[in-house]
Amino acid sequence: MSDYRAPIAEMRFVMDELAGFRDVAVQLPEFAEATPDMADAILEEAGKFAAEVLAPLNRVGDQQGCRLTPAGVVTPPGWKEAYKAFCDAGWNGIACPPDHAGHGQPDSLAVAVKEMVCSANLSFSLGPLLTTGAVEALLTCASDELKAIYLEKMVTGQWTGTMNLTEPQAGSDLALIRSRAEPQADGSYRIFGQKIFITYGDHDMTDNIVHLVLARLPDAPAGVKGISMFLVPKFLVNADGSLGARNDAYCVSIEHKLGIHASPTCVMAYGDSGNLGGGAVGYLLGQPNRGLEYMFIMMNEARLGVGLQGVALGERAYQQALAYARERKQGRDAITGEALVTIDKHPDIRRMLMLMKCRVEACRAMTYYTYGLMDRVHAHPDADERKRHLLLAEFMIPIVKGGSTEMGIDVTSLGLQIHGGMGFIEETGAAQHWRDSRITTIYEGTTGIQANDLIFRKLMRDGGETARGFFGEIGATAKALAAAERSELKAIGQRLGSALEAWIKATEWLGAAARSDLAGVLAAAVPYLHLAVTVCGGWMMGRAAFAAAAKLAAGEGDARFYASKIATARFYADQLLPQAAAYGETVQAGNAALGAVSDDLF
Amino acid sequence: MSDYRAPIAEMRFVMDELAGFRDVAVQLPEFAEATPDMADAILEEAGKFAAEVLAPLNRVGDQQGCRLTPAGVVTPPGWKEAYKAFCDAGWNGIACPPDHAGHGQPDSLAVAVKEMVCSANLSFSLGPLLTTGAVEALLTCASDELKAIYLEKMVTGQWTGTMNLTEPQAGSDLALIRSRAEPQADGSYRIFGQKIFITYGDHDMTDNIVHLVLARLPDAPAGVKGISMFLVPKFLVNADGSLGARNDAYCVSIEHKLGIHASPTCVMAYGDSGNLGGGAVGYLLGQPNRGLEYMFIMMNEARLGVGLQGVALGERAYQQALAYARERKQGRDAITGEALVTIDKHPDIRRMLMLMKCRVEACRAMTYYTYGLMDRVHAHPDADERKRHLLLAEFMIPIVKGGSTEMGIDVTSLGLQIHGGMGFIEETGAAQHWRDSRITTIYEGTTGIQANDLIFRKLMRDGGETARGFFGEIGATAKALAAAERSELKAIGQRLGSALEAWIKATEWLGAAARSDLAGVLAAAVPYLHLAVTVCGGWMMGRAAFAAAAKLAAGEGDARFYASKIATARFYADQLLPQAAAYGETVQAGNAALGAVSDDLF
Repeated sequence: MSDYRAPIAEMRFVMDELAGFRDVAVQLPEFAEATPDMADAILEEAGKFAAEVLAPLNRVGDQQGCRLTPAGVVTPPGWKEAYKAFCDAGWNGIACPPDHAGHGQPDSLAVAVKEMVCSANLSFSLGPLLTTGAVEALLTCASDELKAIYLEKMVTGQWTGTMNLTEPQAGSDLALIRSRAEPQADGSYRIFGQKIFITYGDHDMTDNIVHLVLARLPDAPAGVKGISMFLVPKFLVNADGSLGARNDAYCVSIEHKLGIHASPTCVMAYGDSGNLGGGAVGYLLGQPNRGLEYMFIMMNEARLGVGLQGVALGERAYQQALAYARERKQGRDAITGEALVTIDKHPDIRRMLMLMKCRVEACRAMTYYTYGLMDRVHAHPDADERKRHLLLAEFMIPIVKGGSTEMGIDVTSLGLQIHGGMGFIEETGAAQHWRDSRITTIYEGTTGIQANDLIFRKLMRDGGETARGFFGEIGATAKALAAAERSELKAIGQRLGSALEAWIKATEWLGAAARSDLAGVLAAAVPYLHLAVTVCGGWMMGRAAFAAAAKLAAGEGDARFYASKIATARFYADQLLPQAAAYGETVQAGNAALGAVSDDLF
Repeated sequence: MSDYRAPIAEMRFVMDELAGFRDVAVQLPEFAEATPDMADAILEEAGKFAAEVLAPLNRVGDQQGCRLTPAGVVTPPGWKEAYKAFCDAGWNGIACPPDHAGHGQPDSLAVAVKEMVCSANLSFSLGPLLTTGAVEALLTCASDELKAIYLEKMVTGQWTGTMNLTEPQAGSDLALIRSRAEPQADGSYRIFGQKIFITYGDHDMTDNIVHLVLARLPDAPAGVKGISMFLVPKFLVNADGSLGARNDAYCVSIEHKLGIHASPTCVMAYGDSGNLGGGAVGYLLGQPNRGLEYMFIMMNEARLGVGLQGVALGERAYQQALAYARERKQGRDAITGEALVTIDKHPDIRRMLMLMKCRVEACRAMTYYTYGLMDRVHAHPDADERKRHLLLAEFMIPIVKGGSTEMGIDVTSLGLQIHGGMGFIEETGAAQHWRDSRITTIYEGTTGIQANDLIFRKLMRDGGETARGFFGEIGATAKALAAAERSELKAIGQRLGSALEAWIKATEWLGAAARSDLAGVLAAAVPYLHLAVTVCGGWMMGRAAFAAAAKLAAGEGDARFYASKIATARFYADQLLPQAAAYGETVQAGNAALGAVSDDLF
């Protein structure tokens, strides 16, 4: 198993050249202190922490996983200590507001720290991810009283948070939620119901856990408009902030999963033990029946966070495969004839390594770019700019989530393949990344749900205006590249231009077919998402190549690094961009084939 | 977890309409008894056996795996009994020659039985696969004396066989093999060395195991031309056929693998314990220094067998995903508005199911077709026909092996995806198929090795003549489809024609670049393989649609089944064939991008 080294130079390049971090301190007063020097210091520290504390625990977490004991869930050896060190160093609240003990860093900086944590140890990263999601929910809709009791402890990581959406009958379809909440005389509620797939629903790292639970009030309307959100602590909290009675919220089993073994996935029973005389004590968050709406506010960032996981796993797998390929000797060099060479000399291994590298870099750029948009959404002084950036960010989110997670599965698979037979042996560690990646296209909305979100919400809601603006930007990049002097840029520009055309044509087809061939549009959604991902990735790579060429022309910085950016972008253009046309054709095939398939033809 | 049901109607269709089984009994005197009735009876029996005996053990095999004890490897509960029943029913030697206790069935019939066994329980299937491979080696090159002692016992399955190629330093590169053989006065040899990744290297199902071991004689030339093949039994065999001394051939550890947990993957030590005074007793097979050549004769069938595994796992995953999708209710029907429907009604789930179905069917047809060619290779009365079929079969084998195994990974992944969060839970069983599939693109030659084999051996050795003949056949099918009356056939024919053009163009580019851009050709090999797979699959689906339309026109057989064949072919044409052009572009991009990537740019 290889070590992890945070790719700081690459991260800084993407942040500055592609994700607008360079301008954050200037444009957004809230982030005036997020200077390049500050970023360097933070990323170096975070990189050390990820490599030295978190990465070494990734394997033991996979092998030993979590255990459910009568006293609750026990995390793997070392987990508790690592979590304490993580919180003590302040990483948990890096992007949380300073007035609640956070560090108030912009997303376009925090994203790099988060990537490192995910690369080093995905199972570990999920606890803080869920906690900061819950923090955001509380910021959005909790009463001042609840904020005062819970927020600071969650921002510092002293207590963790969970999200309780899924029930056995209600997965992608949350309208089917049955958990219920009974109002009490004191203004609190009693919660009854079972929730499944609750990440870090129980653990031994903190002395309290704050569950956010979706449930129905009596007489709530049926469907998604009758769901409210409740805060249900594991231990009740006394007025002085000390812990009180054990609440009736228990983990009753944990799942035996394909991957992320060290992240406990809990079945939670609320109000089932009766230890408080019936029901778990809960507190309404925000207004009745608006729970799903609040959940969707968090969902944006949660989905971005999962997209980032795809990038992080791809990066880790790439580093490991590269290290292996540089060590393993096998076969003759087909070009030079040298007798026994390391396998990184074989063209097909190089192809796979470059495919991994360029796909990770394209998705990293898309992801960081979108986090950069979120900074403007949160902190731009101009309301119109906030709105414009929100529309664009929301357009990008399903592309980032769907694209980066599918990429993560493909790239970790290539990493395994490069190891040959050794890749299939668990001790090598390559298989773990592949197994861990497999959940990312499912949780926080499957790839199919991202694709529907892209088409039916993000694309169509403004009649395609956001998309057209975006196409215009990509087209301008393609033109500038095609007009550049360097032959690599020209080649990239041409391929990007053709790929963009395919995306535009497919989008026009969707617009026309939305009424006449709804089934065809629905069936075309995922191929359309792949098309969007392919072109967005190509745009990012083209922008990267352009920026790198400018640095080289100016004689600035590390020439080797910039040459690598251009070569990687060219490789992406040759290997990935031609697929855009194929996806476009598939989209436009519509429902012709599927429409003929009645249920009994399967 | 779903049950397995052998898709007999589909198998018979492929055998008869696409793989030439219908003509076997007529064309090939050796197989005169392989009539349709015989096939029906055999497939029905085999289907029952696979479903009732083997499939139920698939899960326990995954969960419990094998254990190494001081007495040797212990297989999971039920394994021994199932293996005995398998041998008693005669399945082990179904395609082996009758004069050695085999059943002498043609490959184009036996392939369906083998698919069932692999679908039901891949881990189980590997023992018989290796045994029949060893049988073939003995038929090719063993002395009459060795044949008399070993063959019948291996054909009936009373003893199993293994292949010992890999050593820690010698994986894809067998030139690096170090195991050695010392000649003894009595004509036998003593073998010394360590072998890894030995499938079923030890187990408790039979009282003897016959290892075929690659090793070097003293003074053998370096490299692949100095490797000989030896037969090394676990127990020596006395003249009367009874078992003698324990040979010095021991399993010293078993691997902890990502999948196929119930197939013991052994590290074998030969001549290390010294219990026979130094070395394991072995017998030379065939002539000195020709071991690799013999191994490659077997390799053809072994690679086809692994391709078949991809089909088998895809089929199993498809059946399971379909059963789940028909049961799981979630969400509203987007077309009819029905409130709560089973998820197989959602267009994106239908798309995934159809993608699984059409890709499995295309690969099944390619695989059975190639087994059908092998029947002609083995048994055609005309020598020229045998040779012609051999060239074509050898051209197809890397396409089948590379294509079907990559398909298997993709399709089992889709199966998992359709299960949503449940797919990530091991108890569901969907994840096992995905994990099991992951070895198939690695063993018996990685996808990269298949691609090189396709280009540098199968394509170029006759100056592309075999390929051109094959293109002609595909072109004729495309034309016939395009000229048909049914609109679906027309559409398929047009797409097949365009895809074929892309393949021809890429092939011409390869021919031209082979000298001028060798690195580019090597880097383009895998995309070229994907291109070939895509078009071959399209050809098979086109032929299937054509045959089905003829049946419908004649009013013969099950109209629902034939309608499904046409719809599935159309779906393949719309969804898969457009990718041919993209692969073609990538091939022809050659080394432009990769050539600029020096080692320090990764």
